[in-house]
Amino acid sequence: MPNDVVYLDHAATTPLDERVLEAMLPHLRGTRGGLPRANPSSLHAPGAAAREAVEEARASVARLVGAEEPAEILFTAGGTESDNLAVLGLAAADSSKKHLVVSAVEHPAVRVAAEHLEAMGYEVTTVGVDADGLVSPAQFAGALRPEDTVLAAVMWANNEVGSVQPIEEITALCREAGVPLHVDAVQAAGRLPVDVSRVPVSTLALSAHKLYGPQGVGALYVRGGVELKPALFGGGQEKGLRSGTENVAGIAGFGAAARLASEELEERTRHEETLREALISGAIGIPGVRLNGHREKRLSNNAHLSVEGIEAESLVLFLDALGYAVGSGSACASSTAGHKASPVLLAMGRAEEEAISAVRVTVGKDTTRAEVDGFLGAFTAAVSQLRELSPLYTS
Amino acid sequence: MPNDVVYLDHAATTPLDERVLEAMLPHLRGTRGGLPRANPSSLHAPGAAAREAVEEARASVARLVGAEEPAEILFTAGGTESDNLAVLGLAAADSSKKHLVVSAVEHPAVRVAAEHLEAMGYEVTTVGVDADGLVSPAQFAGALRPEDTVLAAVMWANNEVGSVQPIEEITALCREAGVPLHVDAVQAAGRLPVDVSRVPVSTLALSAHKLYGPQGVGALYVRGGVELKPALFGGGQEKGLRSGTENVAGIAGFGAAARLASEELEERTRHEETLREALISGAIGIPGVRLNGHREKRLSNNAHLSVEGIEAESLVLFLDALGYAVGSGSACASSTAGHKASPVLLAMGRAEEEAISAVRVTVGKDTTRAEVDGFLGAFTAAVSQLRELSPLYTS
Repeated sequence: MPNDVVYLDHAATTPLDERVLEAMLPHLRGTRGGLPRANPSSLHAPGAAAREAVEEARASVARLVGAEEPAEILFTAGGTESDNLAVLGLAAADSSKKHLVVSAVEHPAVRVAAEHLEAMGYEVTTVGVDADGLVSPAQFAGALRPEDTVLAAVMWANNEVGSVQPIEEITALCREAGVPLHVDAVQAAGRLPVDVSRVPVSTLALSAHKLYGPQGVGALYVRGGVELKPALFGGGQEKGLRSGTENVAGIAGFGAAARLASEELEERTRHEETLREALISGAIGIPGVRLNGHREKRLSNNAHLSVEGIEAESLVLFLDALGYAVGSGSACASSTAGHKASPVLLAMGRAEEEAISAVRVTVGKDTTRAEVDGFLGAFTAAVSQLRELSPLYTS
Repeated sequence: MPNDVVYLDHAATTPLDERVLEAMLPHLRGTRGGLPRANPSSLHAPGAAAREAVEEARASVARLVGAEEPAEILFTAGGTESDNLAVLGLAAADSSKKHLVVSAVEHPAVRVAAEHLEAMGYEVTTVGVDADGLVSPAQFAGALRPEDTVLAAVMWANNEVGSVQPIEEITALCREAGVPLHVDAVQAAGRLPVDVSRVPVSTLALSAHKLYGPQGVGALYVRGGVELKPALFGGGQEKGLRSGTENVAGIAGFGAAARLASEELEERTRHEETLREALISGAIGIPGVRLNGHREKRLSNNAHLSVEGIEAESLVLFLDALGYAVGSGSACASSTAGHKASPVLLAMGRAEEEAISAVRVTVGKDTTRAEVDGFLGAFTAAVSQLRELSPLYTS
């Protein structure tokens, strides 16, 4: 029965919060205040109301990340566009420098954008991670070349294994070297106290649908004074950095989601951590099940598990048949990518077999203890049944 | 009273059709079938349902424009991204050719993308238009250099003055010269029988919110065999040409809007044309009011009027106060652009004063005759009162 699906794949996307939908509906049915829907660039009253809704949302997103000014927030169509705009836009803003430093565990939106620059003649230094997926600040800083490095990028928290980087130290070292730092905070925002007034990143990428907002909306924080070239050309919206008619309802939804995330951050985190701990201790009690990522420095909602002797894809499908939706590695890559080993796990030094045997179980603010307990039962059954069938498992 | 606003700015954005919203809601509240919302890249059942919704919408958009295969439709975040992807993507796909041909009346999403290429060393030939805003096919073809022209671009129908280009002749000549042609059909789709099986364009840009769909969703038709490089890098969604988690609800809404536009095309066009004719004949009866764009070869919903002796901005605001929302030139440019003269009208040979005195009145499928009559009364009053105050008007 479809209604009975237990959704434990919050890192791939979260449900839309009912309160966010309520904030969107007036802008879907028209513009708030009973006005017709409008283009925020229009001069008339409906246009002004649409503009106002966008600016209100901008202020909420600015507050979520501690931005000094709402104008430091640019709305985009999602985390990928935000990451691309930062990497390509920072690189284009200073054409005298042709070197990038990125961590080995970046989201494809950063990694592939860096590869694109590499194909255009840039040099890219990829800084490895330890067995827990963590970057060493000293090693990262050692790769910076102040005279030549146009930007560095490191994600706040990893979308697959959930490890949280030592972002304060890395940021401080980049600032010391005078190198702009881009941080993908798509998974971190709404789960960790992401605060750019304390952590002086240059740019920071956000996505609404990872924090109970709508799909198709993101934002890029751009610190005042940081120069960036646009990646979308046209009518000159978003200070000329992101042309295109604004998605007013989506942006209003993002604003509402950001406001709720600010208000409920501690409560959500506490709730998720309790469930995560139950999940992890239950799962690693099964022989041959291993936790990936750092044991403590990890996202409140993430349990990433390698299961000896089983391919992740089979396990995901088996659990799906039992009514539990979990992720295999990362859903942020197209399903056409098939069951390739995760570059994140390979960077952490795992063997290919281990890398293709990993499932990502991510709880959310509305996940219940009963759902987690039910999952652990199904997981135990799935692992043992699949191992009976598996040619890979011998112990 | 805000509810009484008569919305006559459908070229800027249309209202969201209630039936489109109905199609979106199951994907906002979850995924159709009572499943939780999912990332279409996820392997589990909710992910598969989200994928299915995207593919169903793709088929509906493909049918709207007569595409042979749904796979020829790529979803984007809007018309601007679609135009950018086409212009930059076609140029990048063949780096041996460094010349572009564009019409003088392109949307900024094409024009500024071409200027970006120009700044990168490309040569851009801009082909002028006649006094009605029409491109001469012979002149356009004369600018093509088969050995050197990487792409040509002409819009199907103009977003400001509403003139409809001789697209069949232009397309045939580009095909003869072997030059890929990009066509912005953002205003044309849903109003004219846009059919790529008859008109062999290479790429075609569409936007959902111009045809009663959601804001923040667009599509690019890419004919099978046409090579294009991506403009967004990451997880490899949309055949690697447009990375980023799909906006499932928005895409489902676009699909519903496209289906309705296909079904109701003739009825809508007939209705709009009747209202447009009433508008135009009423307006040009006022001394010193002139229609811009071709008298017959124009969009079914567009009346673009220059009003001697009055600045458009004052007229728009005056009409707004009377409860009528109309456009000043184009709302597709950011409001920060101020009251600069429209490049489209300048290209049509109009003097600067005339170009800053133009309002765009665009009806929609649900506009009534009573609304048009009411508008004509308000317009007549506004013109005469503003002229009394105007230092520009002397006759």
